[in-house]
Amino acid sequence: MNRIAPGFIRANPQLTRAGELKHLLTIEGLPRVLIERIIEIATQFAVQLPLGEARSGEARSGEASQGPEQSSAYAPIAPLLQGKSVFNLFFENSTRTRTTFELAARRLGAGVTNLDIQASSTSKGESLLDTIRNLSAMHADIFVVRHAQSGAAHLIAQHCAPHLHVVNAGDGRHAHPTQGLLDMATIRHYKGGFRGLTVAIVGDVLHSRVARSDIHALTTLGAPEIRVVGPRTLLPDGIEQMGVRVCHAIDEGLRGADVIIMLRLQNERMNGTLLPSSREYFARYGLTPERLAVAAPDAIVMHPGPINRGVEIASEVADGPQSVILHQVTFGVAVRMAVLGMVAGVLR
Amino acid sequence: MNRIAPGFIRANPQLTRAGELKHLLTIEGLPRVLIERIIEIATQFAVQLPLGEARSGEARSGEASQGPEQSSAYAPIAPLLQGKSVFNLFFENSTRTRTTFELAARRLGAGVTNLDIQASSTSKGESLLDTIRNLSAMHADIFVVRHAQSGAAHLIAQHCAPHLHVVNAGDGRHAHPTQGLLDMATIRHYKGGFRGLTVAIVGDVLHSRVARSDIHALTTLGAPEIRVVGPRTLLPDGIEQMGVRVCHAIDEGLRGADVIIMLRLQNERMNGTLLPSSREYFARYGLTPERLAVAAPDAIVMHPGPINRGVEIASEVADGPQSVILHQVTFGVAVRMAVLGMVAGVLR
Amino acid sequence: MNRIAPGFIRANPQLTRAGELKHLLTIEGLPRVLIERIIEIATQFAVQLPLGEARSGEARSGEASQGPEQSSAYAPIAPLLQGKSVFNLFFENSTRTRTTFELAARRLGAGVTNLDIQASSTSKGESLLDTIRNLSAMHADIFVVRHAQSGAAHLIAQHCAPHLHVVNAGDGRHAHPTQGLLDMATIRHYKGGFRGLTVAIVGDVLHSRVARSDIHALTTLGAPEIRVVGPRTLLPDGIEQMGVRVCHAIDEGLRGADVIIMLRLQNERMNGTLLPSSREYFARYGLTPERLAVAAPDAIVMHPGPINRGVEIASEVADGPQSVILHQVTFGVAVRMAVLGMVAGVLR
Repeated sequence: MNRIAPGFIRANPQLTRAGELKHLLTIEGLPRVLIERIIEIATQFAVQLPLGEARSGEARSGEASQGPEQSSAYAPIAPLLQGKSVFNLFFENSTRTRTTFELAARRLGAGVTNLDIQASSTSKGESLLDTIRNLSAMHADIFVVRHAQSGAAHLIAQHCAPHLHVVNAGDGRHAHPTQGLLDMATIRHYKGGFRGLTVAIVGDVLHSRVARSDIHALTTLGAPEIRVVGPRTLLPDGIEQMGVRVCHAIDEGLRGADVIIMLRLQNERMNGTLLPSSREYFARYGLTPERLAVAAPDAIVMHPGPINRGVEIASEVADGPQSVILHQVTFGVAVRMAVLGMVAGVLR
Repeated sequence: MNRIAPGFIRANPQLTRAGELKHLLTIEGLPRVLIERIIEIATQFAVQLPLGEARSGEARSGEASQGPEQSSAYAPIAPLLQGKSVFNLFFENSTRTRTTFELAARRLGAGVTNLDIQASSTSKGESLLDTIRNLSAMHADIFVVRHAQSGAAHLIAQHCAPHLHVVNAGDGRHAHPTQGLLDMATIRHYKGGFRGLTVAIVGDVLHSRVARSDIHALTTLGAPEIRVVGPRTLLPDGIEQMGVRVCHAIDEGLRGADVIIMLRLQNERMNGTLLPSSREYFARYGLTPERLAVAAPDAIVMHPGPINRGVEIASEVADGPQSVILHQVTFGVAVRMAVLGMVAGVLR
Repeated sequence: MNRIAPGFIRANPQLTRAGELKHLLTIEGLPRVLIERIIEIATQFAVQLPLGEARSGEARSGEASQGPEQSSAYAPIAPLLQGKSVFNLFFENSTRTRTTFELAARRLGAGVTNLDIQASSTSKGESLLDTIRNLSAMHADIFVVRHAQSGAAHLIAQHCAPHLHVVNAGDGRHAHPTQGLLDMATIRHYKGGFRGLTVAIVGDVLHSRVARSDIHALTTLGAPEIRVVGPRTLLPDGIEQMGVRVCHAIDEGLRGADVIIMLRLQNERMNGTLLPSSREYFARYGLTPERLAVAAPDAIVMHPGPINRGVEIASEVADGPQSVILHQVTFGVAVRMAVLGMVAGVLR
């Protein structure tokens, strides 16, 4: 089961000939059955790592009686990656994403090596591929790669030793597939599925690898209406061809939406030619309680983090009852556990 | 047992309603029974991690016969924190303190994640509390926090998810409770207890969170005479109200002392308005063999490290038979093991 | 067995009185029987960590059927260092060497603590030996030391607590013994032994601790002809006294060689007084396919990495069938496992 027709597979460098996940490079072209399987496994892990509030509740009521015998609830899920070496290759700094991958790998029993690549041999003039070949020869099993250049993870997957698995943790403006998958796991958890769903993605779509990954995932999973919302300068030309509806007015974009994904506005965009000021941006596109009121009454609010309070989102909304931003973080660990286990072939 | 009257507890954010240690933020207000319990557990761990010299002696005599079957002596004490995630959140660099927490957590079987917070999302404009909320959502169990601002650990403890535990690893000039506790464990080991003890704390008390934590601990444990010794510019106004005796002349301060705690003189104080020069400081307050001779014959010499040889302490004293400075380091690991186990509720 | 006569041992700070490896500081003066034993153990580990290509082949053919039950092949060899603490003390940055030591230690079950010493107490004016004494008191078991100054590892070994073991991971221009040993393990793997072997070491011998370690190892193991090849400015005066033959012409140096060890040319040498330019260096000393043709037909090409393509070596040679550069990396992990296990006394 979960096997795909052979014709499709050969065109997709992420899959083995048997149609299983070998690398995770992008959600574009990833078969629906695999996306659903990742979400399903991640959801099982998330049950064992309960969401912040649920768990907080337990801790509160059970606090007085909490003892050593209860600590098994926090034990590693299963040492599925025992003896495997996961290398976090972060050519671009991201403490948050690196940490979730580190936790995910460790919870499955893998050894994790963090490599600060700026400080390493690339500063001695070694090429990216020579660095990769060297690390392969140390018997790495999985490379988690973050790089400022689009396509870096693909390049590494093409040239690394055949026993290796590559997980893209963000490459330039191209893709951030585990973010897309954790967003899907979050939506499925709160909305039950994707049928009939209206999703609004709001903000700096132009520079966002998260938006690209979300749109590919939502399209593949069959969400009927995907809207991108933002000023002309922050929406890429021809984005309609990805199957989305373009809205420049935020009220139009949010009306009746079931899911609102706010994007982070990078500081460096704010005082440039693209945008007048962060204050004016908030006035036109910031998610306030009033604007949230035009969405569906049970709409959820998402954000990949870190949030800019008072720039793209008001604190009342970020901290309000419809926000699932911190639950996305929890799903982030669970999705990364699922992906690491699947590319390594120990989960399928 | 070890339970405190409910009235007291609610005023102390470090304790659960049942009077158990939930966070370790400061020694101020920590019930004596809890301080004694931490010292007791730490002392048991220290027996299993024998002090440097004792162990060195064993290694020396047993060297030729040492084999794999003996390596069990070094095995993790007990995997009491198996499956727990300890996050070292160091907003201020301290390799030494971070390393002892890392070792303590790992020896109890916990997974440790080191976060260099300068390099992380706070540089992207994220607030301290948003960073904490995000890390909580990754299912951290314990935050070990070092921060340049007084009160940072309290702030985090107030706002983090209820299942989380915070250990203050030094906040501004305010407190460094695990240093205070390891100092007490060291004193109890060498002096048997605190009754009848005269303790001299010498040097830059004004800027020292170690001095504050030591004074609170000694007072709570009933040491009858605590002296602070130093020039007027380095002693805080009104410190007598903490229950200590102020001495400006070092010989008066050291006379008959059973325990001498030398404080580190920060380099940045030396050539400023507070002090004329490090040479003159040593001439007036440096601990030399001659000055040590006015203390009790079996006085012990302590220092939180790193020491400035020839500034606050002479090498003959630092390396001499009355110095227990390196044993403090060993107790440091043991105390941090005890604290991590107690806040997590697996030791009590 | 593997014991040496007592007279010899006392002169060698690396050995216990029983003639076993206590520290690994330099290959100079290391008894042949110990070098051979390290190579033998490392080769056994390398069988369990098969060379990149062999393993790649397996992965390719077995991919479809690979499942969790096969992951035991990647499991830690044996938890011989379970409960031991290995400290990576890198006073000089080297991601590659640090990573191989980290992997080697972790594969034997040790806990690994990486210390960035520039950022630590030495910046607070603490002396190297005080830092070492403090880390000893935390119950480190093994220090892996990299330092820019020649003799640093010896100094630490002389002054650390008796239960500690020091492994030199490169000190100034002096020695890089694990690199020398991994080179010997590689040569033995491909050439079966050292009898009758001609080895050419080509390039910047003057600044190379790798060349020094290789020459000591090859001499001890009985390689009959060791040549150093390079311009006068890059060969140390009087190097003939180490038992090597000096060649300034590369064709003379390579003629009939069974093993060619190319050295890395540091960027900082290239435009100084020592060398005219990297282009001219390549023209005179770069290893091209034509030059390789004058060596023995089955000669192997080695390099400690990272390679400078087009400076000391042509890409056709670095990536060609006679290159064993990446297999050196694999042996690097295996040799470091052997050394860590031997100094800790759990392998002999």
